[in-house]
Amino acid sequence: MYTLYSMQRSGNSYKVRLALAQLAIPYRKVEIDILQGESRTPEFLAMNPSGHVPLLEVEPGRYLAESNAILWYVAGGTTLAPDDRIERAQAMQWMFFEQHSLEPNIGAAYFWLNLIKGGRDLQTHALEDWMEQGYAALGVMEKHLSVHSFFVGKRYSIADIALYAYSHLAHLCDFDLAVFPATRAWLARIAAEPGHVPIDWQPEAALA
Amino acid sequence: MYTLYSMQRSGNSYKVRLALAQLAIPYRKVEIDILQGESRTPEFLAMNPSGHVPLLEVEPGRYLAESNAILWYVAGGTTLAPDDRIERAQAMQWMFFEQHSLEPNIGAAYFWLNLIKGGRDLQTHALEDWMEQGYAALGVMEKHLSVHSFFVGKRYSIADIALYAYSHLAHLCDFDLAVFPATRAWLARIAAEPGHVPIDWQPEAALA
Repeated sequence: MYTLYSMQRSGNSYKVRLALAQLAIPYRKVEIDILQGESRTPEFLAMNPSGHVPLLEVEPGRYLAESNAILWYVAGGTTLAPDDRIERAQAMQWMFFEQHSLEPNIGAAYFWLNLIKGGRDLQTHALEDWMEQGYAALGVMEKHLSVHSFFVGKRYSIADIALYAYSHLAHLCDFDLAVFPATRAWLARIAAEPGHVPIDWQPEAALA
Repeated sequence: MYTLYSMQRSGNSYKVRLALAQLAIPYRKVEIDILQGESRTPEFLAMNPSGHVPLLEVEPGRYLAESNAILWYVAGGTTLAPDDRIERAQAMQWMFFEQHSLEPNIGAAYFWLNLIKGGRDLQTHALEDWMEQGYAALGVMEKHLSVHSFFVGKRYSIADIALYAYSHLAHLCDFDLAVFPATRAWLARIAAEPGHVPIDWQPEAALA
């Protein structure tokens, strides 16, 4: 059975929990509170030198990091992972876009405005850049979603899961999605997918 | 034949040119000078709403963005792309690490210190963060390379190409690699791979 090192309020961790729930794959979850330095202990850094969650123990002593790489690993060969050559590349395109253009901006704003008490005062300068670049990334998504129901092909995939994680938290950190109607409709569509679980869902609930 | 929209001095564009050269895949190259706004024209944005290079036209009118997604597309099924399930996931892990932790820092420093005249004075505040986080990313790479010759398995792959692009430019933007001997040895190993071409190599040279 997999062991997932995850922080409940982390969007990157949520991606993996959402995919595992929808694929009905059981796993053991270990909560890592990055706000308490738990991803920077010698023990954790020995498992993942980057010091990030999520981290998946795929077999005893073998660890896989980076949320989107974990999504490909757990979802490969399932209906959540595009299999056609061009659609697989398009899914990767959107997942690299997510880690390069969306997560560093909305994720950073979410961290400092929502998770860290007093973070707004600490990051006034950087916050302007995150807002500007976060809105630019949302604009790229909106353009795609105004003519497509999902990010790749005609169905829900791990590309949607990756992009959903932080875009569905954007309203908690000053982003106003009023000007992105196609994105709001897509967020509602993803939340209505079979087996969807919210970010605060605990996998133990399924075992109870 | 592929058409690659590329900027010669862009590390992200170089990744794709290097892989195509080593795979002996012919392509037409269109130079896009992002410093002259050529990636922000209506024509370019219609092809790639993100406004980034590289961009690969995989067939007439069909475009693929994000350098690492393009690497997977062009190298899939070749010796440059790991095929085993765990090694494929590890290659993705390192490539997401590259786009999230290495490129945004070393790439940004390279852009402002090397490509933009006077950029150092414009970005003094951000530069501190890029240096700190860039060194942290190089430290993660060094730790891996101190016990492995390549990033995935025992051989050269697109994960090495992705990480090489900006780490081999780091010395041009204030990073001192003296404290990373394993990384320096790996950089030399990559440059000695069969068919390696430097960043200033022009594909037309092969046709002349």
